[in-house]
Amino acid sequence: MEPITPKLTVDAVIVLNRELVLIRRKNEPYKGGYALPGGFVEIGETTEEAVKREAKEETGLSIKIIDLVGVYSDPSRDPRGHTVSIVYLATGEGTPKADTDAEDVRLFSLENLPELAFDHEKIIRDAGDKINGILSEM
Amino acid sequence: MEPITPKLTVDAVIVLNRELVLIRRKNEPYKGGYALPGGFVEIGETTEEAVKREAKEETGLSIKIIDLVGVYSDPSRDPRGHTVSIVYLATGEGTPKADTDAEDVRLFSLENLPELAFDHEKIIRDAGDKINGILSEM
Repeated sequence: MEPITPKLTVDAVIVLNRELVLIRRKNEPYKGGYALPGGFVEIGETTEEAVKREAKEETGLSIKIIDLVGVYSDPSRDPRGHTVSIVYLATGEGTPKADTDAEDVRLFSLENLPELAFDHEKIIRDAGDKINGILSEM
Repeated sequence: MEPITPKLTVDAVIVLNRELVLIRRKNEPYKGGYALPGGFVEIGETTEEAVKREAKEETGLSIKIIDLVGVYSDPSRDPRGHTVSIVYLATGEGTPKADTDAEDVRLFSLENLPELAFDHEKIIRDAGDKINGILSEM
């Protein structure tokens, strides 16, 4: 019997030019709101491969993974159903440009973030020390 | 359209009486081999709740989560199909006893581990510094 488990997603906290890369959501839920780039993990790819693919698809950026931020698994974090997200901290390279899944891509300083979808504000707060670690080495 | 993602599991590296708690597998794959306690995450529970439930079911122990060890997502890590495991480091309380899912529960010192199923040897190696951190505070 095949077990049914929560859906698995990845999200990326990307530092580029001393700012964070956020996408503006094209679809519900939180349509029009800002969020971390990310998406569902496909069967046959590692979570690291998935987050690099999603970052590229949604922002046009190549990313280098620096660290694991954490695992976010509260059953109510996505109104569509139970998803568990593996979140990575990364640095970006290239010029951000919106693609099919995102309405817009924008850079924000850590001190001036917009309102964020899902639990992404908490995620960025959790990553704060590690983000500052990257910024201090730039 | 519902995305299909890898199955989500949790595993626990449990320190009890300065030793690691391993179970002997009752079923294939790796039947009769030693492994970390763990299992599938259910819809509606957090990964932290899942690992506590699985540890209790398989070893009889109540555990306290100390840290996240990592996320293991190599598509070939489980011969039954692609599973992604969230691994926690924990301390155990109580008397270990085998339950329905495990043939046997045994304690091993870090220096004297048996051959392990799946990628669990690598997981314990990755957790080495954090395990030693717990041991040094006991």
